[in-house]
Amino acid sequence: MTEEVKDEVQNEDLQDQPVVEEAEKKVEEAPEKSELELANERAEDFENKYLRAHAEMQNIQRRSNEERQSLQRYRSQDLAKKILPSLDNLERALAVEGISEDVAKGISMVQDSLIQALKEEGVTEVAVEAFDHNLHMAVQTLPADDDHPADTIAQVLQKGYQLHDRLLRPAMVVVYN
Amino acid sequence: MTEEVKDEVQNEDLQDQPVVEEAEKKVEEAPEKSELELANERAEDFENKYLRAHAEMQNIQRRSNEERQSLQRYRSQDLAKKILPSLDNLERALAVEGISEDVAKGISMVQDSLIQALKEEGVTEVAVEAFDHNLHMAVQTLPADDDHPADTIAQVLQKGYQLHDRLLRPAMVVVYN
Repeated sequence: MTEEVKDEVQNEDLQDQPVVEEAEKKVEEAPEKSELELANERAEDFENKYLRAHAEMQNIQRRSNEERQSLQRYRSQDLAKKILPSLDNLERALAVEGISEDVAKGISMVQDSLIQALKEEGVTEVAVEAFDHNLHMAVQTLPADDDHPADTIAQVLQKGYQLHDRLLRPAMVVVYN
Repeated sequence: MTEEVKDEVQNEDLQDQPVVEEAEKKVEEAPEKSELELANERAEDFENKYLRAHAEMQNIQRRSNEERQSLQRYRSQDLAKKILPSLDNLERALAVEGISEDVAKGISMVQDSLIQALKEEGVTEVAVEAFDHNLHMAVQTLPADDDHPADTIAQVLQKGYQLHDRLLRPAMVVVYN
C-alpha cells in the first residue's frame, strides 16, 4: 500500500507538470494574478494530497485493527487442528476393552485436560443433531424409514471440531438417507 | 494514533488562526503581495501536513507489520501452555510400573503426536545442560563435590518448554550447589 501511494504521488507529480506550464504561459499575460493562481493551485493540490493521505492513514489503521482481531481470534487454529488426532487416539484407547481402571482414569484425565485447554481457546465439538453438510461429512448412509427420517444422524464415527465459527474439521457421520 | 493525529491537526488549526490574522493586517498595507504570501503560506502549510501524514502513514504500516509478525510467531503460546500438563501426565503414566505393552504403546503414540504438533508450532523442550536461572527453576539443591561441580543439574523433575525464544515454563531441576 505504501508503494502504491508513492506511485500515486509520483504520477500526480508528473500530471502536475503540464498544469504548471499552462500556468506559466498565463504569467506572461497577467503576471501578478497568475503567480497567485499558481500558489493557490499549489495550496489546493497539497490540501487534497493531505486529505487523501489522512483518509488513507485511517483506512490502514482500521484494516490493521481488523486483521489483528482476526489473528487473535483464530490464533490457536493451527495447533488445535494438530492436537485433534491425539484426542481421537485417547478416545479410542478408552474404548478398548480390558484396560484397568487406573489406566482408564489416567487417560480420562489427559483427555479432559486437553478438551478443557481447547475449550478455553474457543474450540468446541461440532453439534450432531440434524445432518448439516457445512458441519458433517456423510461417510456412510442407511436407508431412511418411519423411525429414522432422512437426514437423521445414525452414528458419529469421528467427532468434528470448530474454533468459534470456523470449522476445524467436519464430524464423520453415518446418516439416514 | 489516529486520535493523536486528529488532535495534532486540530491544534495546528488553532495555531493557524493568529497567523491568518497577522497576514490579514498586512493585506491592508500591501494587498496584492500579502494575498500571494497567504496563498504561499497555505501551500507550505498543507505541504508540511501532507509530508507529515505521509510519514505517519509509513510508521503505522511498519508498526502494524511488526505487530502482525509477532502475533503470528507467538500465536500458539496460550494453547501450548495449556497442553503442557497433559504432556506431563502422559509421561507420568508411562513411568507407572506394570502397565501393559499395548497401553504403553498407545500412550507413547499420543505423547509423540502431541510433541510433534507442538514442535511444528515452534515449541521445544528447554535444554538442561548447565544451570541457567533464565530457563531453569532450582526446586532442590544437593551439595557440590569433585564429581559434581556447582551449577551441574542433578535431575529434571519437570521438563521446561519454550516457544521459539520465549519461555513457556522453566524446567524444574535439582541442582548441585
